[in-house]
This record gives sequence, C-alpha cells and structure tokens, in this order.
Amino acid sequence: MTVNTSIYQEFSAELSDIEIITDIDRVTKLSLDYYHFSPILQSQLNDKKANLVVRPTTEADVIRVAKAGVNYKIPLTVRGAGTGNYGQCIPLEAGIILDLSKMNQIKWLKPGIACVEPGVKMAAFDKQAREIGWELRMAPSTYRTATIGGFIGGGSVGMGSMNYGQIKDRGNLHRVRLVTMEEQPQILELTGDDVQQVIHGYGTTGIITELEIPLAPAYPWQEIIVVFDDFMTAAQFGQALSDSAGIVKKLVSIHSAPIPSYFTALQPYLTQGKHCALLMVSEYDVAPLKDLVTEYGGTFTYSKTAAEAAKGTSLLEFTWNHTTLHARNIDPSFTYLQTFYFTLERVEKMYQHFGDEIAIHLEFLKAGGKAVPGGLQLFRFTTEERLQEIIEYHEANGAFIANPHVYTIEDGGDKQIDKDKVAFKQKIDPYGLLNPGKMRGFTL
Amino acid sequence: MTVNTSIYQEFSAELSDIEIITDIDRVTKLSLDYYHFSPILQSQLNDKKANLVVRPTTEADVIRVAKAGVNYKIPLTVRGAGTGNYGQCIPLEAGIILDLSKMNQIKWLKPGIACVEPGVKMAAFDKQAREIGWELRMAPSTYRTATIGGFIGGGSVGMGSMNYGQIKDRGNLHRVRLVTMEEQPQILELTGDDVQQVIHGYGTTGIITELEIPLAPAYPWQEIIVVFDDFMTAAQFGQALSDSAGIVKKLVSIHSAPIPSYFTALQPYLTQGKHCALLMVSEYDVAPLKDLVTEYGGTFTYSKTAAEAAKGTSLLEFTWNHTTLHARNIDPSFTYLQTFYFTLERVEKMYQHFGDEIAIHLEFLKAGGKAVPGGLQLFRFTTEERLQEIIEYHEANGAFIANPHVYTIEDGGDKQIDKDKVAFKQKIDPYGLLNPGKMRGFTL
Repeated sequence: MTVNTSIYQEFSAELSDIEIITDIDRVTKLSLDYYHFSPILQSQLNDKKANLVVRPTTEADVIRVAKAGVNYKIPLTVRGAGTGNYGQCIPLEAGIILDLSKMNQIKWLKPGIACVEPGVKMAAFDKQAREIGWELRMAPSTYRTATIGGFIGGGSVGMGSMNYGQIKDRGNLHRVRLVTMEEQPQILELTGDDVQQVIHGYGTTGIITELEIPLAPAYPWQEIIVVFDDFMTAAQFGQALSDSAGIVKKLVSIHSAPIPSYFTALQPYLTQGKHCALLMVSEYDVAPLKDLVTEYGGTFTYSKTAAEAAKGTSLLEFTWNHTTLHARNIDPSFTYLQTFYFTLERVEKMYQHFGDEIAIHLEFLKAGGKAVPGGLQLFRFTTEERLQEIIEYHEANGAFIANPHVYTIEDGGDKQIDKDKVAFKQKIDPYGLLNPGKMRGFTL
Repeated sequence: MTVNTSIYQEFSAELSDIEIITDIDRVTKLSLDYYHFSPILQSQLNDKKANLVVRPTTEADVIRVAKAGVNYKIPLTVRGAGTGNYGQCIPLEAGIILDLSKMNQIKWLKPGIACVEPGVKMAAFDKQAREIGWELRMAPSTYRTATIGGFIGGGSVGMGSMNYGQIKDRGNLHRVRLVTMEEQPQILELTGDDVQQVIHGYGTTGIITELEIPLAPAYPWQEIIVVFDDFMTAAQFGQALSDSAGIVKKLVSIHSAPIPSYFTALQPYLTQGKHCALLMVSEYDVAPLKDLVTEYGGTFTYSKTAAEAAKGTSLLEFTWNHTTLHARNIDPSFTYLQTFYFTLERVEKMYQHFGDEIAIHLEFLKAGGKAVPGGLQLFRFTTEERLQEIIEYHEANGAFIANPHVYTIEDGGDKQIDKDKVAFKQKIDPYGLLNPGKMRGFTL
C-alpha cells in the first residue's frame, strides 16, 4: 500500500482545524514505541514511520479523520502513549498516526465504575479515582504515562492481574465506543462479550473514543522488598503469598540474581547474589505478610507506606517490563521472553536447565481461577536461532510463550486467528486501513 | 467433674453486681445451640445444661468471673449467640455459661480494620462499617444474630470465603485479647500466627474480650437466582463464576433438586425439578455475569439490587447451613454433611453414586489459592451405620469430611490433635475448666 504524498497535503488542508504534526523529528518520535526491547523487532521496524500525526480532541474530529482517511485510502494507526513493546502502534505501511492522547477527559467517575476517553493517563485517572476510594483494576509498569485506551488496545496484563486476571477476562471492560473506518464512519457501542473485538486488537478493529471500565477498591498499598538466599524459595514464597486469601495484594514480583543488581536506585535494599521479591500489599495486611516472610526465611529490607511511596519512585517501576528496561540500561544486549509457566515445577526445571543464560523474573497473576507464575525472563540476545531454541525448549516442556519478538496479534499471545475479530474488522474497516499488517488473519 | 451446687450460691453472691441468670427456662435456652441439625449430637447433648448463665459487660467483670470460676473449680463455657451446629457452646459438664453477647462495643472502626468486643453482632457491625465503605470479610448465614467472637471461636467459613478463604487463613484475624482461666487471670494479647490458638478453639483456649479484624471493601451486592436444567451444568457454572477474576462476588451457592423446593419463600423464582444458583455479585459486574449465565444456559429468575435486597430477606439466609434449616422445616429427618470435594469430578461421582439419597448443596470457597466446591449435602438420617458408610465412601474417594455429627474440635474438621493449642490451653487453663470435653487432646 503506497500513498501519493500530495494526498497528505489535501488531507491536512481538509482537517486544518485539528492539530496535525508534520515536523519530521516529532513524527519520527510519535512513530515509535518500546519495540526496541526486541532486537528482532528493532531490525524489522526500525525504518517504519508515519507521514504525519493527527491529534484530535473530540470524537467528532475522530470521525472527520476517519472519513478523510477512507476517502484518501490512507493507513491509520492509533496510538496512545506508545509504551507498548510489541510494536503495536508502529505504522508498518506509513500513513497517519492518530494520537489520542489529547482525548483525555474522564466523562464520569462513580464508585466501582468510570467512563473515560481513551487518552486518559492511568496514574492521573487513579489520582482522581482514589479520592472516592477506587482505582484501576490493573495497570502496566508504564502506568505513569500509559493511557487507558492504549492498555486496553495493546496490553494484556499488569499490576492487579493478581486479583483481576487478564484484561480479556469477562468483566474487565464493560463498554467501548468505537468509530469505524468506513466511507461514512459509524459510532458503535460494544457491551458484554462483544468488547472482545477491541481488547488486544492493536487498534485494527475500530478507533476507541470512550471506555466504560470497572474499578477496584483502592487500598493503601505498602511497598515492600524481601530478600531471599535461594531463588526457588523466593518463587515458592511468591506462590504462597499469591495463594494467601487472607492477605490482600496487587503485585508479587520475584527476581532471580543477578536481576536485583540492575535496580540501581534500589541497591541499598538489595544484596549481591541474592534474590528478591518486590511486593505491593495492603497496609492493613503487613503484619500477616511478615509471618509469611518469616516462614520462608526471607528478610524485609524495604517497607514504605502508600503515603511514603507516593513521594518517590514506586516499586511498580522495577517490575513487569520495567525490569527489562532496567537491565537494558545496564547492558543493551538484554532482551526477554514472556511466559506462562503455570507451575513452579516448570519454573524450577527451566531455572536449572538454562542456568546463567536466563535470569528468571516472575510476575504472579490470576489465570483460570488460580494464581500462576508468569515470566519475563531476561537473557542476552545472541542469534535468532538461539532465541528460537529457547522458545521451543519452553514450549516442549509445557510452558506457553507470548512471544514479544513478533508484531502481529496472532504470532504474539493469541497463536491463532480470531475469526470473530477478523470478521468484525472486515465489516468496520473494509479497506483494511486500520494499523495494516498487524492482524495476520485479515486479508482484503 | 461435679460441683456442689451450693458453690453456685457463693459464686453468685460474690458477683451479684453482674447479670446472672438462674431461671431454669432461660438457662436451658442459653445452654443450646443448633446441634439438633445432627440426630447424633441431639441424642448426645440433649441433657446438657449449665447451672447458671453469667452475662458480663466489661473485661474487668470477665476477669472476676474467671477468678471466681477457678476459685470454685467450676466449668465455664463461653457463648455468643449460640448459632453454631457442632454443639460448640454446649456445657458438657454443666457449670457456668459465660454469655458475652452484652460485650458488644465496636471499640474503633477504620478503613480496612476494626477493633470489636466479641459480642458484636455481625450484621450490626456491617451496618456501621458500610458507612465508611467496608464490611466483614466473611460471615455465616446466621449473620443477623451471630456474634463476631462466636464466629471466630466456633466457625470456619461462610459468605465471603469465596474471596478470603477460611477464618484460619493467615491475615483474617489480626489480634485477639484473652482472659486466662488461672487463679490470677491474666490478659494476653495474641498477634500474628499466635491468633491460631483461639480460632475454632470453641472457647477452650481463653476468653476472648477483644478482636482486631481486617475488613473487606463493601460492594453493593446484587442478589441473584439462576435456574438450570442440569445439576452438573449448575455446578460447572458455579466453578466458572468462582474462577472469573473479572467478576466480583461473595456468594456462589449451588443447589440440586429437590433442595430448591424447600425454599418456601423463594418458590416464585424456582422451578420444580430444576437446580439453582443463589448468588451475590457486585452490582457493577452484573452485566458480565449475564454473559456467563448465557454461556451456561441458565435462566435469571431473580435479581435485586443491594438496596432492594436490604428491604427483605437476604438470599444469604437460604445458603450455607440455612439451607439445612429450610430443609428441616419441611422434614425434620433431614441432616447434612460438610465436605471439601475439591473438584467437580468428585462432585459428579458422588452425585451419580448416591442418586436420590443425597441432595447436593455446594458452596464455593477459596482453599489453597483456588476456588473449590464445598458441600453441605442433605439427606434423610436413617442409622448411624449408614451415616458412617456415607462418610467413608466420600473419604475413600478423596473428599474431606468436616463431620458435623461430633462435638470435639479434633473429630470435626481438624482430624488431629493440635499440639500447640493443647500446650497453650495447659498454660492458660491449668484446671481444664474452659468448655471441658471439647478438646480431645487435652488431659489434666
């Protein structure tokens, strides 16, 4: 798909009352996300860049952009804060980046539920929601800058998944309002199971303009570091804490040595060669947590109340894929995998098999009604062949890899073509203009 | 152990400023609980009765009662509302009933945590706690009258166990204040794992005078009935709902036919020969629940908002052991078992094996980090031999029976002597006066 560049001048002239960015440096920057965590995506996506960026502030403007986009048959790739790691918002076929970060109104906020525009930043939302005792059910480690729409469209799990599972789990998104990419763009409202059409759809299945999201009760979250001599003991502690129904938590993040050494800002609380747990536990439940830590022989080295933690950097920003970020700050050859181990036995098997080659980082989350260890393991990239061998060894041993070295929806976590999503896209994006190339199952 | 009755006159004279009940009818009534659900306990406990009832209002008075009790070597059995079913508060060796229902002050109530006297009624507590957005983590179906101290001392699970597991799970009781049964009664404060000494101790391990309990966020709970054609489909729905991380709930109660026919007040919402689910789900999550019900082919027949439900009888009062109560109102020959099935496969096996002899009633709860089906199966009592056969068949097939037809701690759910509890009792109750006969592991 190629588009005559003069078309962009016409497009821009038509929409001249909307913010349009053409400055090459800014367009280049807004054509990026954090795919560079993967050397493979880095080489594949390196040269991808939009022609221009459009930054609407209203749904009415989104409709005008969509209509013009269809009229000129210009590819359109929606973007929030661009904090993803799969190249979700990289414009493979150039065209327009539709940056929704200025559609950032909280429409309404009630106990238990809120209605937001997609560009609302997650941390900013929580700041307001906590005033009435609520917060987001889950959020990524990029929480400070990430947008709610971006997380729904491009994310899958995060802090809070310990309690609420994956975004796609029934109940975690109540309603979504979409603008279609048709000659006469329509507004659709999806509720119930139909919201699955947009979750983790990378913006290929419509332009989100509004979301109704259920909330979680906002506890004051104590931030805690516990150090362990033995990695598998740390992992078992993580499972035990995750399984402790009487201890309320939202983050259980376990790091094998040498990962803690990459957390520069946390060095006073970590010990060379040891393993650590980074935790967020309800302040009300710190006492029973201490008993559990004692049972597993861990050492508390850091404990901040929610109020204290709010003054500095949250431990969240050392967990999930921020762990990878910190490792890459030390050595840019680090990359990672995303793994559902499902059991600690499998974690141990991989730990022993790969030895020093792979440093295991676990995040516990709820899947199928159980707390299971997920992994974002770190290792130094050597060759694609070796990466493939590592993936295959995990899969042969029953682990499930959500491959972060591919950019299509299907090749990542889904593994198969979602016929419903494809059929939905064919209806609402008949020219295949929305983020082309990301949904492998879609053909014109 | 026998006590010269004249001693009671001296005892009463010493404590004449405390409410003491000697009226035979009232003493008889206050020597009862709901053990009559078991025909075996009924015949064993039928003639057990205290000599008098003491009803203190302060800890200072409790200390005086304990001191006098030890002085005269009178057995002392603590009681709350007497809503248990194991004969927990039946005075096997007569003596004093220490009725703590007048020690009913909420000492303080903060977000996430509260400090109460043992006699605080659970529903009354929640009414106050909900004003600041919180409620009890778990409660029995006798919630309206049951006391918090009674539930901690004599209960184990209930509504809310779906989220918080069992009372004994670490974190569900933060601190307990006890008066010992020594010549010079002491006040002990137990925290951390030490609180296990009093949980499900039937008052054999000290007299609770204060409790610090963690709370749960108070959602508005929608009360819902769903009807199913097939029992195992209803059970599978119960498991799926319990495993749905994105749907917040606190009660998932599944009833095979003909149990629904015993719910007289609910007949308009039930169908002859069909099976039902009684549910409490967050009002914010009713929409995704409906999708789940559709997936399992159930029919919504009843749905009340929390505000509507508050005006009438809560569905809670048809679940847990209230189910047994309703069945016994229809036919007093009904009795029950308490079972951890752990898996639906085992539920199905028992369902098919026992056929019409046993009507299965499931309550889902969290155990070992998973939602598992617990059972309070109903059947008509025939002989002790048949009861024993039923228990043995369940156990032989891997189910765990918490036998409600025995009155000692060990023979019920524990199955083994808890050496720590016994050692603790030996220290704080050297004469074995607290609820004698209930802790099999204790000997003088």
